[in-house]
Amino acid sequence: MRVLGIDPGLTRCGLGVVEGPGSDPAMVTVEVVRTDRDDPLPQRLALVYDRVTAAVAGHAPDAVAVEQVLFSRNVRTAAATGQAAGVAMLAGAHAGVPVVTYAPTRIKLAVAGHGAADKDAVTRMVTAQLGLDSPPRPADAADALATALCHLAVAGPASSGAADAPGTWGEAIDGNPHVRVAGGTGGGT
Amino acid sequence: MRVLGIDPGLTRCGLGVVEGPGSDPAMVTVEVVRTDRDDPLPQRLALVYDRVTAAVAGHAPDAVAVEQVLFSRNVRTAAATGQAAGVAMLAGAHAGVPVVTYAPTRIKLAVAGHGAADKDAVTRMVTAQLGLDSPPRPADAADALATALCHLAVAGPASSGAADAPGTWGEAIDGNPHVRVAGGTGGGT
Repeated sequence: MRVLGIDPGLTRCGLGVVEGPGSDPAMVTVEVVRTDRDDPLPQRLALVYDRVTAAVAGHAPDAVAVEQVLFSRNVRTAAATGQAAGVAMLAGAHAGVPVVTYAPTRIKLAVAGHGAADKDAVTRMVTAQLGLDSPPRPADAADALATALCHLAVAGPASSGAADAPGTWGEAIDGNPHVRVAGGTGGGT
Repeated sequence: MRVLGIDPGLTRCGLGVVEGPGSDPAMVTVEVVRTDRDDPLPQRLALVYDRVTAAVAGHAPDAVAVEQVLFSRNVRTAAATGQAAGVAMLAGAHAGVPVVTYAPTRIKLAVAGHGAADKDAVTRMVTAQLGLDSPPRPADAADALATALCHLAVAGPASSGAADAPGTWGEAIDGNPHVRVAGGTGGGT
């Protein structure tokens, strides 16, 4: 199965595509969408939406996995990150691809073995698991790949598709780990 | 000119349309979009996007005014509100209508005369300014109308359209009062 992982952000939004089985994942591509702080906010949001839409169209992932916004420096940055996450999830939903969200601790646990892993540890493990020659930079790129790897680890081994693996429908902001788009047909390889 | 004001929220999102001049505004319509907490997050965001899109298509506002997320109980609610605000702004941008954001204090100042006005004062002033028989309920409805009235007060008197009134392009999350969509042609009556 193929997963588009997203580390949402308004200034930098990481988009990473991995393909697996979870036991032997490979990177398909990674990019960081940057929007200009001087541009109008709606234009910046439209750019993030367009780039996620393009990534889904270009790489046909079986699922879109988005890192939840649970921690932030302050309310303003949380709101800005939430805006980017919102349009990214909407792009996945509009494309008809199941959208799953994961808490940061869940991603760290899946990728680095414990939920309190620091950024360097996550980057190292992403680099190792994907067999990359050099660490993905900036951190947004590594985080996007980590989010994709997390979904691969959760959804991949249990079945050949994403449909059955995440436990329950839930609401990201309430801290449930999984959210998928209604009517999503799941992944399937 | 006609303004669609939005009080963004994931559980309840207020949409209010007012028409003016700022000196004699009238309510065109108000609604509160509710999404089910048990529904998947992407589906909820798509509903908000669709309803804003429908409001723009149905009422042809000259501008969409969105209340900024600057205060919140915590990071999670800020992120959730940000997600709703993000897809609401995107809907305005996709419809080609100028999108403007206002800080809560700016809205209160414009509607109730001071930036620290409480919710009851805002509701009272909205009711009075629009000549309504009864106060708009819930608060999200009143807040959406207040946001629209704020833009009418700021953009209406200075010119016949919205294009020239807001001071500068800026970024909402940095606290500048105004953000408009690039290429927006402004309002016009």
